[in-house]
Amino acid sequence: VARGATDDKGQLFAHVKAVEALLNTTGSLPGEIVFLIEGEEESGGNSLFNYVSDEGQDLKPEAVLISDGTMYDPVTPAITYGLRGIITFEMTVQGPAQDLHSGAYGGTVANPALVLTQLLSRCIAPNGTILVPHFYDDIAPLADWETKNLKELALNEQDLQKECGVPALHGEPGYDLLQRLWMRPTFEINGLTGGYCGDGFKTIIPSRASAKVSIRLVPDQEPSHIRQLVFDFLMQNCPNSVHLEFPWYAESAPIVFDIDSPLFGQAHSALQQGFGVEPVYVRTGGSIPVVNAFAQAWQCPVIGMGLGQDSDGPHSPNERFSLDAFVKGIKASAYFLQTL
Amino acid sequence: VARGATDDKGQLFAHVKAVEALLNTTGSLPGEIVFLIEGEEESGGNSLFNYVSDEGQDLKPEAVLISDGTMYDPVTPAITYGLRGIITFEMTVQGPAQDLHSGAYGGTVANPALVLTQLLSRCIAPNGTILVPHFYDDIAPLADWETKNLKELALNEQDLQKECGVPALHGEPGYDLLQRLWMRPTFEINGLTGGYCGDGFKTIIPSRASAKVSIRLVPDQEPSHIRQLVFDFLMQNCPNSVHLEFPWYAESAPIVFDIDSPLFGQAHSALQQGFGVEPVYVRTGGSIPVVNAFAQAWQCPVIGMGLGQDSDGPHSPNERFSLDAFVKGIKASAYFLQTL
Repeated sequence: VARGATDDKGQLFAHVKAVEALLNTTGSLPGEIVFLIEGEEESGGNSLFNYVSDEGQDLKPEAVLISDGTMYDPVTPAITYGLRGIITFEMTVQGPAQDLHSGAYGGTVANPALVLTQLLSRCIAPNGTILVPHFYDDIAPLADWETKNLKELALNEQDLQKECGVPALHGEPGYDLLQRLWMRPTFEINGLTGGYCGDGFKTIIPSRASAKVSIRLVPDQEPSHIRQLVFDFLMQNCPNSVHLEFPWYAESAPIVFDIDSPLFGQAHSALQQGFGVEPVYVRTGGSIPVVNAFAQAWQCPVIGMGLGQDSDGPHSPNERFSLDAFVKGIKASAYFLQTL
Repeated sequence: VARGATDDKGQLFAHVKAVEALLNTTGSLPGEIVFLIEGEEESGGNSLFNYVSDEGQDLKPEAVLISDGTMYDPVTPAITYGLRGIITFEMTVQGPAQDLHSGAYGGTVANPALVLTQLLSRCIAPNGTILVPHFYDDIAPLADWETKNLKELALNEQDLQKECGVPALHGEPGYDLLQRLWMRPTFEINGLTGGYCGDGFKTIIPSRASAKVSIRLVPDQEPSHIRQLVFDFLMQNCPNSVHLEFPWYAESAPIVFDIDSPLFGQAHSALQQGFGVEPVYVRTGGSIPVVNAFAQAWQCPVIGMGLGQDSDGPHSPNERFSLDAFVKGIKASAYFLQTL
């Protein structure tokens, strides 16, 4: 499976080249190979989802290899075996029918921008702990091998801080960096707007204020259940002096695959042979909703064999795809196909 | 004194007509009358302030009559004897050097929009009580006559709610409507912005988030002292994972005049004669910074003899000035001039 964003195209070509190489050298393939190419990922289309649940339902592949994601570092390949889920929603606090003069009415009319900040800040403590009751109840404990794996991977705190350009890192107490990135849920404001935001000043009580919020989920948090917990909590805490609305939401479940499946072992050997370096098992903090669609429709492992690098600048100007990773990726892909 | 906004021009003409009427009937004026006309109020200019502290310093009037403000209701004239002060400022929370992918970094990097909501919501409780330590320390108690006056004025709660188009009114517990509007400080967010606010969604950790905040003050809160209390409180509560900045602020002190001054008594009689209804004494929740400049430069009472009405729609399309108030205002102004 290759997806639409530019950063995934180099990865797709590596797999195409591997098929070509196998056909040129052995004259045959180990089985039927289907390339599924999506051009809509970054424009929010539903065609791939529709395909999977419609004509693609009978495809029933043995495994799905997904051309998305990155190596662990410039020399170490990685197998992605799990992804966080996500809930995204918009919330709007509606107060007075129109913006009011804050001198003439201040003290008697609730300020929607203030109510919005109060509601959002009730959801999450300054230290990063989410305060919505029962939010953490369903989180599955880590397997022993995962805890051990995390210790061995040990991400460098100073590198990450430098990469992000922040004065200090931040996060839920009691969890190390990789756990917070991959295995713990988050609560983020992605956009915030209300009142007068232009140059200068208007002393108004804004009529309304809105936020775009995303919540990353981890196994076994069920998106619609968590969404309901959050919406209920916000509604319960909303004063009767304003109206709170959720005009829009979307969600995707977290997923984790069993790396004991033989196909994960085969991908591991193939990457080792192609790159000459032992690959590591990683989860990702991001969400790829189609992975859930594949796993659900076909009940097969979806293997993330990412060939990109963090320094490739995906979605940015001057995006690149490393030629070294390209060549080694072709080899790894060919080895993988041969072992099927 | 007449000021620039359209809603004050009708009031100015009433005073001009009163002078004309006195000259036409008695042939003289009780003393020198200076009209001070400002065209910059709504465009933030400083010319009037500069005039007062420069060439206008020697003007030393006996009293200033300010053509701004409204009657208490369509039939009852009002004398404004006090105004709230105001502090306005912008605050910016700066996080990562650029917007980050909330999946790839969420859990390790503080979200500036979230920090902004947490900081602002620490300043004020959902019930409207301001939580900045020592914020209320310097508030002067009301005079006995003011407490009595408030009881007599009794603003209608349902009318105000309907006027604002809100599901319920709101405000600091323990204080009635007029107290909250005139005699209690407020803390408002006038504008809020951060991250992606357009159509659709971007799952980002925004690089920065900002708010425009205004705080109304009452006697004897000193603006620069209160501003420092608020800035210090915000700084103390700001995590070290972001930078907090206050790129801009402005302030104006609250003021209250002694209505026992003979000039207030003369304005009271004049309004009663002009309108045939006993005027009431009111404060206003708004702030008119030039009033402070006049009072300070000339050490004289600044009398608000507002002839406007709430239904005039000041600053709106189809703004009006009541002809009835105009005619009665001319009479009141002439009576006032005669008693000087």
